[in-house]
Amino acid sequence: MDRVRKQMDFLVEIDKLKSIYRRAVLMNRSRNENDAEHSWHLAVMAMVLLEHANESVDVLRVLKMLLVHDIVEIDAGDVSAYDLAGQAGKQERELAAAKRIFGLLPEEQREELFELWVEFEERKSAEAQFAAALDRLAPLLHNYQTEGQTWKEHGITLDMVLARNSQIGQGSERLWAFAQEIIRESVEKGYLPEK
Amino acid sequence: MDRVRKQMDFLVEIDKLKSIYRRAVLMNRSRNENDAEHSWHLAVMAMVLLEHANESVDVLRVLKMLLVHDIVEIDAGDVSAYDLAGQAGKQERELAAAKRIFGLLPEEQREELFELWVEFEERKSAEAQFAAALDRLAPLLHNYQTEGQTWKEHGITLDMVLARNSQIGQGSERLWAFAQEIIRESVEKGYLPEK
Repeated sequence: MDRVRKQMDFLVEIDKLKSIYRRAVLMNRSRNENDAEHSWHLAVMAMVLLEHANESVDVLRVLKMLLVHDIVEIDAGDVSAYDLAGQAGKQERELAAAKRIFGLLPEEQREELFELWVEFEERKSAEAQFAAALDRLAPLLHNYQTEGQTWKEHGITLDMVLARNSQIGQGSERLWAFAQEIIRESVEKGYLPEK
Repeated sequence: MDRVRKQMDFLVEIDKLKSIYRRAVLMNRSRNENDAEHSWHLAVMAMVLLEHANESVDVLRVLKMLLVHDIVEIDAGDVSAYDLAGQAGKQERELAAAKRIFGLLPEEQREELFELWVEFEERKSAEAQFAAALDRLAPLLHNYQTEGQTWKEHGITLDMVLARNSQIGQGSERLWAFAQEIIRESVEKGYLPEK
């Protein structure tokens, strides 16, 4: 029961991820999206879009990585990819968060989740590259569905979106081709300024 | 690309799950919980609590089931387990929802997700019984952490909680033992009225 209690302490702690809000807004524009529901959406994306990964990937590992990848933001907060000032010290803050939060778990589980988080951050394995591709594709879908709401709010332009998202191709060439289509349409429809 | 577009239509549609609110409140009591973040929480619970399943279970299948089990509520809504009037016609509404929403996907994916949903609902496989145990355990944790907030709001008493949650034992005797501990503590602390 001591082991169960440690696991429950962790599961209670991560409830806080539901109150970490991202810059992205829900597709119905009712409010900002939080990290927990974002992680759920990415996991379902992985189930459905798996066939488009460049390499054959272990879907269980992709799902686990996506489910835990944002938990560090409970302590470190969500920083926009375009916020260069916010990026300073982010790695150290996230590392400390990973140690504290995964550290609530029994030892071998603490290590498993910590390693999944490191693997996702390093973007080296085929699984991490596919997971990261989905993590970039999702905000594009949100922006496309909301007529570029967060792009407009934060002065994001075409070159910034292309520079950031070309990495989708590392995980899935096909999804990067799809992403380029919706980026092009977004410019045509006036959701995304060229400059 | 036609196949990718169908998959994206589904992934856009399910964004609505983030706006389907449950009776449960977040552990920090700031607002009600939605189905998408609830599904994420259950999936992480499955990763962490897997060892306590009564039988050896396929964790990938458990995760997939938990990730899609509430999607039907986009059309059918969330109905409390204790709301007997709301239960009338629920099965038909959810079946129609499953057909419509999973029907957005390419054919073999539509069938895979539909079958996962049916398997979860039928509670026959070891995977479904473990997944269902987590789905019942989560509201207990929320109530315990919030001093019984939704129990008190809806006049729920000890006998109702015991009757509903004894099914946790079908998926995990150990988690049912843990659940009984927090139910007992909840009564002692005044979070849950005996009658």
